[in-house]
Amino acid sequence: MGNTFGHLFRVTTFGESHGPSVGVVVDGCPPRLPLGETDIQRQLDRRRPGQSRIVTQRREADAVRILSGVYAGVTLGTPIAMLVENADQRGRDYGDLHEKFRPSHADYTYQVKYGVRAVEGGGRASARETVGRVAAGSVAMQVLADLGIEIVGWVAQVGGIAADVDPSTVAADAVESNIVRCPAPAAFPTMLAAIEAARKDGDSLGGVVGAVARGVPPGLGEPVFDRLDADLAKGMLSIPAAKGFEIGSGFRGITMRGSEHNDVFYTDDDGRVRTRTNRSGGVQGDISNGENVVVRVAFKPTATIMRQQETIDSAGNATVLEPRGRHDPCVLPRAVPIVEAMMALVLCDHLLRHRGQCGEMPGR
Amino acid sequence: MGNTFGHLFRVTTFGESHGPSVGVVVDGCPPRLPLGETDIQRQLDRRRPGQSRIVTQRREADAVRILSGVYAGVTLGTPIAMLVENADQRGRDYGDLHEKFRPSHADYTYQVKYGVRAVEGGGRASARETVGRVAAGSVAMQVLADLGIEIVGWVAQVGGIAADVDPSTVAADAVESNIVRCPAPAAFPTMLAAIEAARKDGDSLGGVVGAVARGVPPGLGEPVFDRLDADLAKGMLSIPAAKGFEIGSGFRGITMRGSEHNDVFYTDDDGRVRTRTNRSGGVQGDISNGENVVVRVAFKPTATIMRQQETIDSAGNATVLEPRGRHDPCVLPRAVPIVEAMMALVLCDHLLRHRGQCGEMPGR
Amino acid sequence: MGNTFGHLFRVTTFGESHGPSVGVVVDGCPPRLPLGETDIQRQLDRRRPGQSRIVTQRREADAVRILSGVYAGVTLGTPIAMLVENADQRGRDYGDLHEKFRPSHADYTYQVKYGVRAVEGGGRASARETVGRVAAGSVAMQVLADLGIEIVGWVAQVGGIAADVDPSTVAADAVESNIVRCPAPAAFPTMLAAIEAARKDGDSLGGVVGAVARGVPPGLGEPVFDRLDADLAKGMLSIPAAKGFEIGSGFRGITMRGSEHNDVFYTDDDGRVRTRTNRSGGVQGDISNGENVVVRVAFKPTATIMRQQETIDSAGNATVLEPRGRHDPCVLPRAVPIVEAMMALVLCDHLLRHRGQCGEMPGR
Amino acid sequence: MGNTFGHLFRVTTFGESHGPSVGVVVDGCPPRLPLGETDIQRQLDRRRPGQSRIVTQRREADAVRILSGVYAGVTLGTPIAMLVENADQRGRDYGDLHEKFRPSHADYTYQVKYGVRAVEGGGRASARETVGRVAAGSVAMQVLADLGIEIVGWVAQVGGIAADVDPSTVAADAVESNIVRCPAPAAFPTMLAAIEAARKDGDSLGGVVGAVARGVPPGLGEPVFDRLDADLAKGMLSIPAAKGFEIGSGFRGITMRGSEHNDVFYTDDDGRVRTRTNRSGGVQGDISNGENVVVRVAFKPTATIMRQQETIDSAGNATVLEPRGRHDPCVLPRAVPIVEAMMALVLCDHLLRHRGQCGEMPGR
Repeated sequence: MGNTFGHLFRVTTFGESHGPSVGVVVDGCPPRLPLGETDIQRQLDRRRPGQSRIVTQRREADAVRILSGVYAGVTLGTPIAMLVENADQRGRDYGDLHEKFRPSHADYTYQVKYGVRAVEGGGRASARETVGRVAAGSVAMQVLADLGIEIVGWVAQVGGIAADVDPSTVAADAVESNIVRCPAPAAFPTMLAAIEAARKDGDSLGGVVGAVARGVPPGLGEPVFDRLDADLAKGMLSIPAAKGFEIGSGFRGITMRGSEHNDVFYTDDDGRVRTRTNRSGGVQGDISNGENVVVRVAFKPTATIMRQQETIDSAGNATVLEPRGRHDPCVLPRAVPIVEAMMALVLCDHLLRHRGQCGEMPGR
Repeated sequence: MGNTFGHLFRVTTFGESHGPSVGVVVDGCPPRLPLGETDIQRQLDRRRPGQSRIVTQRREADAVRILSGVYAGVTLGTPIAMLVENADQRGRDYGDLHEKFRPSHADYTYQVKYGVRAVEGGGRASARETVGRVAAGSVAMQVLADLGIEIVGWVAQVGGIAADVDPSTVAADAVESNIVRCPAPAAFPTMLAAIEAARKDGDSLGGVVGAVARGVPPGLGEPVFDRLDADLAKGMLSIPAAKGFEIGSGFRGITMRGSEHNDVFYTDDDGRVRTRTNRSGGVQGDISNGENVVVRVAFKPTATIMRQQETIDSAGNATVLEPRGRHDPCVLPRAVPIVEAMMALVLCDHLLRHRGQCGEMPGR
Repeated sequence: MGNTFGHLFRVTTFGESHGPSVGVVVDGCPPRLPLGETDIQRQLDRRRPGQSRIVTQRREADAVRILSGVYAGVTLGTPIAMLVENADQRGRDYGDLHEKFRPSHADYTYQVKYGVRAVEGGGRASARETVGRVAAGSVAMQVLADLGIEIVGWVAQVGGIAADVDPSTVAADAVESNIVRCPAPAAFPTMLAAIEAARKDGDSLGGVVGAVARGVPPGLGEPVFDRLDADLAKGMLSIPAAKGFEIGSGFRGITMRGSEHNDVFYTDDDGRVRTRTNRSGGVQGDISNGENVVVRVAFKPTATIMRQQETIDSAGNATVLEPRGRHDPCVLPRAVPIVEAMMALVLCDHLLRHRGQCGEMPGR
Repeated sequence: MGNTFGHLFRVTTFGESHGPSVGVVVDGCPPRLPLGETDIQRQLDRRRPGQSRIVTQRREADAVRILSGVYAGVTLGTPIAMLVENADQRGRDYGDLHEKFRPSHADYTYQVKYGVRAVEGGGRASARETVGRVAAGSVAMQVLADLGIEIVGWVAQVGGIAADVDPSTVAADAVESNIVRCPAPAAFPTMLAAIEAARKDGDSLGGVVGAVARGVPPGLGEPVFDRLDADLAKGMLSIPAAKGFEIGSGFRGITMRGSEHNDVFYTDDDGRVRTRTNRSGGVQGDISNGENVVVRVAFKPTATIMRQQETIDSAGNATVLEPRGRHDPCVLPRAVPIVEAMMALVLCDHLLRHRGQCGEMPGR
């Protein structure tokens, strides 16, 4: 019981990796918003396996179908259900796993929690579950776009290779210009080479996805537990393979002193309250302050590798897991649209929550 | 509307820093649990201002009173309300702030969100709000202790000074043995000197709090959004001044390859499933795996400093904020019991949630 | 945003009457429960239009498909999505309604709330939405059956004709023995004649559905707001056309004095605590007491009638609505499985909630 | 775990009848609303014991104290905690009950659910818990009053004596003009005589409270589960001693045919959409239609009577309960402000929910 996210803009995902389908229900979407399958498909295609040579080669078209909540091209205000049928329903490549727990996967934990699991492909713990999130996120992005809010995510680090990216100016086009989704021309080729080397070794790499939301009005976030940053942290850590989150200066700000770290307020030429620096990452004391919301998410190296690994079987006996099937040497490029989706879901929910308690946005 | 945390074990905090009182209501606590004010006071005293020379000297006894939910020394299963009256109700030292927004504080964001704010002491955004969390956390710890689960937090880093602490063995006594709450004898004196230097300069330091939960049964965590790690991330980022969260290898694991990072399973001499390393930090695929749950939380340097700072007033005019009142040169020592409390709240909620859907714990 | 019901056993329905499909996601179902499409189809067939000559003749097979959450014939503990495609996707018979608000329907209120509506067939406000509830309810019934809890609903009154039915003994077979779903042989023919007369007149009838849950353990219900009776009331009033709810003596008990109305406790031969009467309807002070849970739900006469009616169009002009399409002269027979489903959902949710906070059932 | 009510305007009550205090936390209240203790005290005084000769003579001043969320006379948008200390902390009159279960009370069900209970005065199941609801309801009423929404409740029936009251015109003053709170001059004296006769006999009476909300804009209610009528039903059935709920024609409408029952739309002289009759009770298809919202709540005769009653003790042995203490021969007069409070809480929550998803009210 934890497959629903959000308080007013509320998404519920369903579906196992190798079951009949994966999908999502979005409840609470504002009415009269133009929405079609094309809008959603565009984001799904960025998450899709097989989109480039550096991601997993599983064959899935991931064609989305809207089942409800849209009428004559606009949202009705009622639940929007979206479905993607799984082409690859039964896993031929996973026979071995019935008996063996894959290291750093969810096989053991699902088995011990539920006493049963969808063995093929990891079931619900598969990254395939994120199809629903990306579909829902693309609905949220329509709401945000309407308010002038734009979200851009990018690959900020692969293994030890970090990219220098300015959240204020990074463009979605630049991110999409290469298959790594790293908008820094200096870093991209090195990252690509590292990913290809890892794949050749049957190994995998982790990294960092950065993301920014620009145009967020001040006032979003619900003290004291549903802070904007706390809900972003939850959303991001709920992505498979995520192990860390930071907002603004994050772990890197702790070596500064307060006098260096504090963001000084000023009034800009348009009379807007601004801060000269943005170490806060757009959130101060639980609530957005009108600056860019900037986050970073750490992803561990993919647990699936094409190497022999020691493990145990479900009877507890020591055994060896042979490499099989397909693998994603680095999830980072495909994680970008997922991080963007979670950011959109959190912001959209908080927009509606703020409006519920306090009325329309101050900036509007 | 965001002052409630948890789904089955549910806490709601209330109270402004300089209002009449701060407190909390805990709903969903299991019945027949021994509970008294002494249990709670012990934790509150670790959070209390004025407890040592390196924390803020505000004078508050923070004496807790149980208002409901306990009868003849045990919990009734009904809401447990706990109250701490504020000794320091009206802030003499804050007159200036009526007009000026303190940098990197919540003054501006609360004002823009609500159109009104409790000016003195930051109201709800004050660390004083965490009194309720610590009180509630101490109730959760009673539930956890009953199941053999122990939580220990410690100061892992102050500014640039990191401590080497082993989560498997760190003892609560060692943490309490010094006023920094750093159990590493090598690091503690340097940290203390750094904090005292910062205070002398009217400046402040950030750092990292580490925490471990030992004895957590496998099976806790609700895929896919209410993952154990996602809820921990939310809980930690909801603490004032927190800017980052990681579980297990976190941001530091991203430079490893999958073959190094994966935790190898084995069966121990007692027949328990274990992993040889714990880069997962006790959570795999959303769910606890029976290893220690290990997290780290980054705290920015305290925003309140005893220095002149440029800022604007509520009319948007540039002005200078003069230093006034008392300040906490480093919140880390007092953040330790707060991090522990949030960890206890998350684990306790997930214990009850798991039991609701799946029945008693596998390990019991 | 109100399409989710339940706190731990949680269902979310979606779908418009004449859109592509209707369906439901059930989150929080206990794992390892045997479940197949046949179990669900049996209940859906009792709700289906066209099942007898006294219900609406809309042609829908209502064939359910399980999209997720079931593996090798058992539940996984993950979300169970169920889908029914609409055969009758575009309403030929409703052209007129684009302009006219049907009296006592949801046309006007949906239009004013959302500024848009699925015109054909009432969209979400159609009784067709209850397909998802009945599917979810049949999952809940599997959980309950496992614990020895049985639910039976029946038609207790049609227009002015009341049936004399004993909740302690009424059998599901007797309910299904006739198309009115009234198990009282004396009342059934009169009810049938009244329904047929109303249909001939192009008119409609209301009535009462009664329902009982037998075998409910004492202890279910969460004071003080999520009382068992309060959640039953909410569940029942959320059914289209429901206008009233009572538990136990309800509105009929108010003319008794306390000395007559109180249920006297005694200990039965098996040592179980019982009450000699059951005016409480199985719930005392928020919580089940182990007696039969007995409720009654009032349904208004169907708003769709085959008669000319005065109304206004969407421009506010007076007009006349001509009779068209098909109608259900009395919803009561088809409401029986819906009332049973809502009862099952409430009880199942409360079983899990009780177990979460308090551990296994006292009676087990 | 069920002591919180509402989704955006959210109240959590706490406190046992004979514990230190009772109270409530209101989270999500709009900011900048004028609020003081006097506003709340006025409603509490209408609920207070000892206010007239026909209600229980327990001595409680019920003086409320606002602990948080209000600053300089206005709401902050933060949680509003309100506390009433119990004067009558330890029950001298209840010694006998330690051993005996009172018929039709919550003694047995609380004991079996939690394995422990606050013996004196019924703990949480006491009507004393409703102090928190009335305090919270008075905050909600301030929000509603600001929007021109007025709530009036009244005693509509005592035992077999029904009053003829027109919901469109009934005035709060008329309700308060007598101690029964029945605004029908013809019915009041008979009701009063009946209550006094019951008290003399040591017996008790049930009845019906009616309530109306006037000025409710069309558009409130969240399909399909959080319908306005469903949430009203839940709110009302959560009041101690409530056994039934109806909206509009309720149980009394079921003998009409559809052609009589349907509410005909017309446009009034101000261009507003209206219905000629209001059998819907202001809610059509889940959502308010702008007509008066009219409900009725059935209350059983008070379970506490001043007569010997057969029962069992906690060991299961048959015994006799001797009359003791004080009793309320008819709860109806004191139930009026509680019904009003629950109606206000539901409407206020739905106003904020509607605004969150759909923006400002259509009528504004």
